[in-house]
This record gives sequence, structure tokens and C-alpha cells, in this order.
Amino acid sequence: MDYKAAFKNAVDQVRKEGRYRVFADLKRHRGAFPRATWTTDDGAERDVVVWCSNDYLGQGQNPVVLDAMHAAIDANGSGSGGTRNISGTTHHHVELERELADLHRKEAALLFTSGYVANEAALSTLQKILPGLITYSDSLNHASMISGIRNGGGVRHIFRHNDLEHLEELLAAAPIDAPKLVAFESVYSMDGDIADLAATAALARRYNAITYLDEVHAVGLYGERGAGVAERDGVMDQIDIIEGTLGKAFGVMGGYIAGDADMVDAIRSFASGFIFTTSLPPALTAGAVASVRWLKNHNEVRVTHQERAATLKAMMKEAGLPVMPSVSHIVPVLVGDPVHCKMVSDMLLSDHGIYVQPINYPTVPRGTERLRFTPTPFHTDDMMRDLVSALEKLWAHCNIARMGGVAA
Amino acid sequence: MDYKAAFKNAVDQVRKEGRYRVFADLKRHRGAFPRATWTTDDGAERDVVVWCSNDYLGQGQNPVVLDAMHAAIDANGSGSGGTRNISGTTHHHVELERELADLHRKEAALLFTSGYVANEAALSTLQKILPGLITYSDSLNHASMISGIRNGGGVRHIFRHNDLEHLEELLAAAPIDAPKLVAFESVYSMDGDIADLAATAALARRYNAITYLDEVHAVGLYGERGAGVAERDGVMDQIDIIEGTLGKAFGVMGGYIAGDADMVDAIRSFASGFIFTTSLPPALTAGAVASVRWLKNHNEVRVTHQERAATLKAMMKEAGLPVMPSVSHIVPVLVGDPVHCKMVSDMLLSDHGIYVQPINYPTVPRGTERLRFTPTPFHTDDMMRDLVSALEKLWAHCNIARMGGVAA
Repeated sequence: MDYKAAFKNAVDQVRKEGRYRVFADLKRHRGAFPRATWTTDDGAERDVVVWCSNDYLGQGQNPVVLDAMHAAIDANGSGSGGTRNISGTTHHHVELERELADLHRKEAALLFTSGYVANEAALSTLQKILPGLITYSDSLNHASMISGIRNGGGVRHIFRHNDLEHLEELLAAAPIDAPKLVAFESVYSMDGDIADLAATAALARRYNAITYLDEVHAVGLYGERGAGVAERDGVMDQIDIIEGTLGKAFGVMGGYIAGDADMVDAIRSFASGFIFTTSLPPALTAGAVASVRWLKNHNEVRVTHQERAATLKAMMKEAGLPVMPSVSHIVPVLVGDPVHCKMVSDMLLSDHGIYVQPINYPTVPRGTERLRFTPTPFHTDDMMRDLVSALEKLWAHCNIARMGGVAA
Repeated sequence: MDYKAAFKNAVDQVRKEGRYRVFADLKRHRGAFPRATWTTDDGAERDVVVWCSNDYLGQGQNPVVLDAMHAAIDANGSGSGGTRNISGTTHHHVELERELADLHRKEAALLFTSGYVANEAALSTLQKILPGLITYSDSLNHASMISGIRNGGGVRHIFRHNDLEHLEELLAAAPIDAPKLVAFESVYSMDGDIADLAATAALARRYNAITYLDEVHAVGLYGERGAGVAERDGVMDQIDIIEGTLGKAFGVMGGYIAGDADMVDAIRSFASGFIFTTSLPPALTAGAVASVRWLKNHNEVRVTHQERAATLKAMMKEAGLPVMPSVSHIVPVLVGDPVHCKMVSDMLLSDHGIYVQPINYPTVPRGTERLRFTPTPFHTDDMMRDLVSALEKLWAHCNIARMGGVAA
């Protein structure tokens, strides 16, 4: 076995498919978001406007969050020093779990080191705690949910994206007393569509299934207190397990689940990905507490955020750009080919100081490669005009089809 | 299916076995390590000495690290705002990966959100990149390695802990040209023993296997520059993939692998747990850069650390306490029963202000339940005398056998 050649071949394959990832080396600047400095391969620096951050509300710059982080470093130091069980539960962890349970009006919440780990650990562990559990998973669920469901090793069925008739068909085919779990998301982050939470929850109940809802692209962003789409739709109490992140709208890092105390305690006691890992540093949990609390009381930020997204969509549509249908804050623009997608993204960065990553397979299905814009309350009308004008030029230059077409 | 009852029963089972985990709510105090404040269930506060932190060198309090974190927050804000590919690669990430590659004298390094994720993602992905890979795993490997090896879905063999004859037997039984990987640790953190790296690497080479070495309990702690046991033993270049953590001796959070550029690039391009997760906040990567650099140049801290561990072991042996054999900085004391172990730990905390968690199944095999002490350069002779004297009282009180025995 020639290992070196095998590794090289694997990467060459990715390159051939035009989906080799080159990470942009960025310096974020506190107070200047969404502006940043990009360091090119030859070491030169260029000012850019970031259009693809998941720091959806700019909380990564909010003085309330930064002050809390500074204070925690001054008081407690840097890392937590251990797993949650072995010296790694700081007072900020306890406080944050209470805050998150309150946010979602649930009995308890449990922190993980990331949203990815929350999904992987919770969904795999639920299959161990509930022997014979059948998991029903939306076909567009995030990679972390897929990992968790697969790693649990139980029976799983994939239902067509947001297709409740298909879900019902699959649910009806299993014995009514078999344990079942429906795993889905509220906002699907690459398309920007939103599931019908009330109908899904009602359907699940009818077939004696529990529900697991990933709200990572919704917490902080929807609902009067920022608890997500389930809050906006008034159905938080009908969802059994809500999973969220502290790394997107809340601007820090980490993931969590919220639900009944017994369920949370069971996952806390059995999930390998929770038990055997160093806990989040106090600075992050303290920053997250501050961020969650602040966003509970600042609904006006969410209103501005939605307005900014609507404005960008309208401007793009007016320019005839192929904005994909989205009912959320996500603004995806179809390209339909990985090489074109990368090329447009490269030219936006080098010629226009506009930073947006190409979204290629495996993040989205092949043939639906796209640019995905995430306007925040800090993206101005001027920035939007610059963006649309740059896209118009590139679309003309690259001969990419407009309004729903794919790359020529 | 009564889900509520199922969750409750699962937790009740853990309680019955005496291994229900109660997390101690701690306030670490910058500058006062290893002292901390414990908040009891009724809200009272008590001063304690932490004896079970993995912040082995107290880097979580090092001003060099904290200053770097403060500076990064001031310059860049809190979170990274995205995955590594989508706006989440900050300049500090690039810098840290270079620093870690240099530390281990490898071509490249790759950051993960934790050591757990590094192991899970790397070991599962290697099986995808190298089809037919047979993984040979030490029987005491960490839960994260077991997860990664299992989740990869390939053929795996478990060899008896640090038993190279058994490993050779298993290696010899496979076709010589089949791709093979030997996964092991340097310091086994619950026993404190250390693998024979040179012999394992040589054996692996003989059978055309690559080596994956987990050094999470060794990086920062061993070797002239703190690169781990492989550096101490002069065999870094004989190990193919070194995995480490930033959350223990380096005092921050995060994990990484280091090795050949092509291997790292392949894992970077295929590992779900790397690709689909928000990257570490700039404050953590900046803090880690400072910590790794500082420890490269402060070998005297490692010397003191080893002296402290040796002193504690000697004091315990003199007192007739059942210190388990350990050639490292880990000082495990055998109890041999989960209920006794928890009881001794509870009494140390409530009656003596000494905080050490009981280590029970599944962290260690049943029947080998223990207390695990991690003296740091900041644990004084007085603290050690207090600890030994408290243990002597409790051993008398609880009628636990001395010197290698198990609980009565």
C-alpha cells in the first residue's frame, strides 16, 4: 500500500471535480463588521466585505458579549481544565444551561462543544437509550444529524425534504408502539426554506413519535425572544427536543439541546461525545450567557435583520439574478456548476473585494452549486448595491443563466 | 412507548450502579490556581483545592495566554462566524496550524474543535480515504478513538493494552499489502503508563502499517519543546500521524492532527466533523498560539511538573496508600468499587475542601474504580500533606484496603 499516493489521489479527485476548498485567511475587525482583511497567498492584505458569515446578527462584535468574555478571562483564566464531570463545570456553564432552558421554556438544557457534536451525540445516544428506536430523517438534514443517526446504528428512514405525506407513509408502515423519532430542521440553511413545525409535530404525535428539531439557523433570529421558529410559530411545547448553537446568531461557539429533565439527564449520562471531552472555556460560556440574554430583549435586531434580507432579495430579483426561493434570512443564488461557482466567487473576491464562498457538493447536491449570501443588520444599502452590480457584471461575463437557470 | 419512563429508567440504572455523575459547580480564580470556589447545591460557597484538573501546567492562568486572548477579542471579536471554509478561517487559525506543524516537526497540522472530534473525525475518515484499511486499536484507547474507529465502519482488531506481541500476531494474520493503521496513545491518562513508541513504530513499519498516536496527555508535558513523548523518545519522525489537544497542558480548547501535507489535506477535504462545524473562536486560537510557543521555551515547567508528581507518589506510598503504578504525571489511587469511590470523593470535598472526582465505569473498567490526582507545578508540599492526611483518615474510616487492595 502506497499511503502517500492514496492521500494524494484522494485530494486530486476533489480538485478534478472543481470542489477543492481553499480557505480564505481573514482578519475580522471588532467594530467594523462585516468588513475584514483578507491575506492573500503571497502575503498581501486586501479589505473585503464578508457576505457569507453565520454571525447573522453581528453578535460577535457586541460589546455586551465581549465584555462578558473579558471579565471571565480576568476572573477565571482561559480553559476549563477538564471534562464537565472532572473539574470542567464552571459556574458559567451552570448559568448558561439554565438560561437556555428558559429560552426554550424547557425543563433543562445540556451544553456540547459544538452544534455538530450536539447532533452527533444526542441522535446516536437516543438510539442507545431507546432500544429499537426508528429514526425518520429529513433528506436535507445537516451532516451532523446524518452522522448521529448513522452512528447510532438503529433503523432509519429518510423522508423527502419537508414532505409530510411521505413522512406519514413511513410512520404508518411501522408498528404503532415502536419507539420513533422524527429528526428535522426549522430553517434549512442552504436553501433558506422553513419546515412546517406545527404540522410535523402533530403528525409525529399521531404516530407516537417524539420530535428532534435542529434550530441552529434560527435561534437568536426568530421568535419574540429569539428562541427560534418554534417560538415564532407558538409550538415550542410541542417539540420534544430542540437543538441549537451558540456559534451563529449568538456569535460565540458551542451547541446544546433543550427538553424534559429526564431526557437531558439520560443523554448527559450516556453520550460519549458529551462525557469524554474538555468543556467549553468559561469565556465562551460567559459570552454566550450575555448574548442569549441580550437577544431575548432586543427583538428590533431581528426585525432589521429580516428587512435587510428582504431588501437584498428584492434588489437581486430586480437585477434578474437567479435568487433561489427562500422564506428566511438566507439569500442563495444558483450557479449550478462547481467550477463556475468557484470562479465567480474568486472573481468577486479578487476584483470586487466581496467575500462569499462557493457552496459545492457535498454541502449541497451536485448541480445545485450556489453562492449563499447572509445579509446582517450591518450590511448597508451601499454594500448591497456594490454586490448586485458586481454580480451583474460577472453573470454577463461568465454567461451564467439568469432567473432559475443553470450555468451554461 | 412511554418515552418519559424510558429516559427515567436509563438514569435510574446509572444511579443504582453508583455511577451517577454530579458535576461540581466551580469558580476558577485567575492567579489562585489550583484553588477554586465550589458552589454547593444549596448555593453556599466553599474554598477547595482542585486535584483533578487536566490544566496540568496551569497554563489556563498564564498571563501570556490570557493577554493573547484579550488582544484577539479586542481585535477580532468573539466567535469566528463560520466553518473553516465559509468565513471561519481567521489569521490565528493559519498561524496556529503552522505552529503545531513546527512543534511536531511535520509538514502540516489541522485544527479541530476538540481532541475528541480530532480522533473521531480523523480515524473514521482514514477508513474512507484508504479503502480496506484494517485498524489495530489498543484496548485502552480513549472513547473518542473508539468512536472514530467504529464509525469508519472498516475492519478493526483490538490488541491487548501495550502488548506488542499480541499486536504483531494480529498484524501478521493480515495480507502484507493490505492497508493497516495502528492507533494508540502515548500516556494512558487513567493509569499513567506510557507506550513503547519506538518499538510500536518499528513493528508497524515491518508490517507496512501507518501509525496514529494520541498524545493528548503528553503534548506540552514531555520532550524538550513540549511536543510529547515522541519528542522525548526521539521518534517523532517515525510516527505518521500525531494527534494532540489544546485543552489540557496548553490550557485552552481544541484538538489537532499533524503529519504529511497530503494526509492532512485529504482529511481536511473529507472529514465531516472538520468540514461542517463552526471553527474555534479567534481568542482560543490566539491563546493557543501563545501557549504552545511559551511552552516550547520553558522546559523548566516540565521539570517541576515531574518533580511534583514524583513527590506526591512518594508521600502516598510512604503513607501506605494504594497508588497504582504510573510512570507519568498521573497519580491514580485504587478504590475498586464505584460506591466507595464516590463516597471517598464526596467526603474529601465536603470535609476537607479537596476536590477530586471519582473515576468510575465507563471511564475505567468496573472493579478498577479510582481517584486520579494530577499534581501541577502549583500544588505545594503543604497541599500534598493535607491531601495525604485526609486520605489516610478516609482510608481508615472506610476500611478500604491499602497498597494494591480493593475496597472491602
